Amino acid sequence: MKKIIYLLACMQLAVVSFGQTPNHKETFKLVYDEVLTNGQCYQTLDYLCNQIGGRLSGSPQAEQAVQYMFNKMKSYGFDTVYLQPVMVPHWVRGAKEEAFIAKGRQKFDVRICALGGSVATPLMGIDAEVIEVKSIAELKELGKERIKGKIVFFNRPMNPTNIHTGSAYGGANDQRGSGPAEAARYGAVGAVVRSLTLANDDFPHTGMTKYNDSLPKIPACAISTKGADALSNMIKLKSEGQVRMFLKMNCQTLPDAPSYNVIGEIKGAGMPNEIIIAGGHLDSWDNGQGAHDDGAGCVQSMEALRLIKTLGLKPNRTLRAVLFMNEENGVRGGLEYARVAALDVNQKHIAAIESDAGGFTPRAFGVDDTNAVKIFKKWEPLYKPYSIDDIRQGWGGVDIGPLKKQGTILIGYVPDSQRYFDYHHTEVDTFDKVNKRELELGAAAISTLMWLLSEEGTLK
Amino acid sequence: MKKIIYLLACMQLAVVSFGQTPNHKETFKLVYDEVLTNGQCYQTLDYLCNQIGGRLSGSPQAEQAVQYMFNKMKSYGFDTVYLQPVMVPHWVRGAKEEAFIAKGRQKFDVRICALGGSVATPLMGIDAEVIEVKSIAELKELGKERIKGKIVFFNRPMNPTNIHTGSAYGGANDQRGSGPAEAARYGAVGAVVRSLTLANDDFPHTGMTKYNDSLPKIPACAISTKGADALSNMIKLKSEGQVRMFLKMNCQTLPDAPSYNVIGEIKGAGMPNEIIIAGGHLDSWDNGQGAHDDGAGCVQSMEALRLIKTLGLKPNRTLRAVLFMNEENGVRGGLEYARVAALDVNQKHIAAIESDAGGFTPRAFGVDDTNAVKIFKKWEPLYKPYSIDDIRQGWGGVDIGPLKKQGTILIGYVPDSQRYFDYHHTEVDTFDKVNKRELELGAAAISTLMWLLSEEGTLK
Repeated sequence: MKKIIYLLACMQLAVVSFGQTPNHKETFKLVYDEVLTNGQCYQTLDYLCNQIGGRLSGSPQAEQAVQYMFNKMKSYGFDTVYLQPVMVPHWVRGAKEEAFIAKGRQKFDVRICALGGSVATPLMGIDAEVIEVKSIAELKELGKERIKGKIVFFNRPMNPTNIHTGSAYGGANDQRGSGPAEAARYGAVGAVVRSLTLANDDFPHTGMTKYNDSLPKIPACAISTKGADALSNMIKLKSEGQVRMFLKMNCQTLPDAPSYNVIGEIKGAGMPNEIIIAGGHLDSWDNGQGAHDDGAGCVQSMEALRLIKTLGLKPNRTLRAVLFMNEENGVRGGLEYARVAALDVNQKHIAAIESDAGGFTPRAFGVDDTNAVKIFKKWEPLYKPYSIDDIRQGWGGVDIGPLKKQGTILIGYVPDSQRYFDYHHTEVDTFDKVNKRELELGAAAISTLMWLLSEEGTLK
Repeated sequence: MKKIIYLLACMQLAVVSFGQTPNHKETFKLVYDEVLTNGQCYQTLDYLCNQIGGRLSGSPQAEQAVQYMFNKMKSYGFDTVYLQPVMVPHWVRGAKEEAFIAKGRQKFDVRICALGGSVATPLMGIDAEVIEVKSIAELKELGKERIKGKIVFFNRPMNPTNIHTGSAYGGANDQRGSGPAEAARYGAVGAVVRSLTLANDDFPHTGMTKYNDSLPKIPACAISTKGADALSNMIKLKSEGQVRMFLKMNCQTLPDAPSYNVIGEIKGAGMPNEIIIAGGHLDSWDNGQGAHDDGAGCVQSMEALRLIKTLGLKPNRTLRAVLFMNEENGVRGGLEYARVAALDVNQKHIAAIESDAGGFTPRAFGVDDTNAVKIFKKWEPLYKPYSIDDIRQGWGGVDIGPLKKQGTILIGYVPDSQRYFDYHHTEVDTFDKVNKRELELGAAAISTLMWLLSEEGTLK
């Protein structure tokens, strides 16, 4: 209570010191000073990661996270905080995977992890010859004759010469997303996919794979980049005989489970029916803590609203923090949020911001609408002192994507991308990899952008 | 040898594929592609950190580093590689420091580390009441009467609201640099300085302190930020009695020792007497591995030249990588390099680039000359796709500073600053804190800037 009184006093002081309506430059200073001196998001992320941990949709941890974040937003005194029900896929990894590579009389244990959505192997595992390909197109060239009965090993690396690592990811992730389904088309019995990372590391990076319902579902897993290089080298030495792999995976898809999007709102003073949201996804893969992907985006979105609330700023339009459930393996939260939003014809989501590229140092905003980019570019000078150099054409985010058909302008928060795929979908995506200030600067960037959109709208 | 033939073949291919003279945009692509696919700097830093370690001036590790980097540059086939002798201060920490805080019958062990250049305590240590100040000015207000016989505790934190952490450092480091000498003016018997970091951490951050020869030299050490907060809280609770500290430090200053700057050169084809250097400092504090400070700058400077050599590019002016000795506690290497450069009236150092702000993701170049900034700004569009948004007015670096009076334009390579002071001058400034791609992108940024300066000079 003492703290609340203190905060209220600070709010008054902060706003009053600039008169009743600080200009944008003054508001930026207020927001950034507050986050860098009294920021809450780092501690919230600490709890989310170290006390709750990995939060795969349908898991008890995902439900703990829903409750924790709901209570946290309640404690911030937002005008409304509520849970939006949504049924989510419920895939579980089961007992730890086992795998080894065999060549002649030699046997090497190797670490794999099932891709999200994969079926299990038979109870006794599978054991088959490995055939390496660099692309889905190569499957067609090889044909059923060469592939049937084998484990297909997709081994095209991400391109290290892409400066933005997201582009390198985009250029390789078809292998994980549809490689296993396509391999099944040619009679493969399993699929092993090189981990999607530019790092030379020892642990598998998981992620979603999608089956084709008209084709057999074969077990699919990721192998670390070091493991992939070793496997590829063994295959190259053909003179020493055929390379086989043993895979044992215990995953299964359970019936859909009930879950929630978590939503907090500050009502707009003048135009409450125009809504601006900032969001991240609360679910994460099960193997790590989901710190950068995407605990960071969740705590930043909440913090963006808290900063405005704490400073006593009164937004003209309605601001929402939305913590989406189930980005990783279904996007059910994003779809449900957009569906419900479309039902209320009296309100309009004018803009949506997503933070789902890690809690790294801020670089830019990417805006998916060509006209809006031109309008928003006028704000670049406000951001220049705060480590954001660019408001540019770009991509919004997976969770906010379904809002597009309502005419919502989608905006991706763009942190520096170099380290993201070192941690992405692995056991090392943990709290200690997040720098407090980098996380906080991102929260302030999102908060100030919400404020600008609230005060100026998207049209002028 | 096979590798060399292969590299030679690649060089030819790379240059030939663009004809004999690639334009700047093509050269950028060549340099960045090479560093991101075949970069050597990360492995060199690995050895420097994990096999050699901390490299304080005068230490055996510093000499190992000189030999290792000399041989490494030799292996790159630069036109000239040589050692430039320089005598350096030789301060040693001695046996690990001991310290505790005492209040009444309570005693708390606390971690300290001697500041560079500090004298030792007497053999039995010192034990005195602690008096906290927030600034050097406060010493004068308190006066001799309050300070005499006490340990002065400088506890002004770095300002977290500075977006660029270097500014926050600059606003607090007078406490470490001249605080102990000034405390001695008022009769203090020791000085304890809050670590210069924005992180809330458990380990002391060392760094240089400078005595005033006309005043007594008192033992001076750093205390961690957590330790400083705890100490300050104990002092606040005055009712519970006086807070005392025990300090035992075993450092000493030995006679100056012989050492070297390590220099590698590619001779300019057209204007060999105009010289452009890139450098970092090879010495580091003894408590960590000197990975970000400044192993990173050294391996980037070497890599900047290697990239040009490997790609078969022929610079018009002479390019040098200079690994300076003794930045941390004397700048003798920087002074000696400038002294020798000034002796040769036939040559001119037209520009010097320093990388001494960590191996983090690239952001900008800071140029210390107002006219040069205007000229160099035309290169911003070349850098925009490569994670550098800004060529701006700024500061060069400590080691290249002495070149200023020769009219050399000084340029600081500016990586992102958020994480730097988490590691700076501590036991956690280790190799694993450096991201391979961030380091490599910095090397390519420096390499391409050397190339632009070589081809275009600094005047047009």
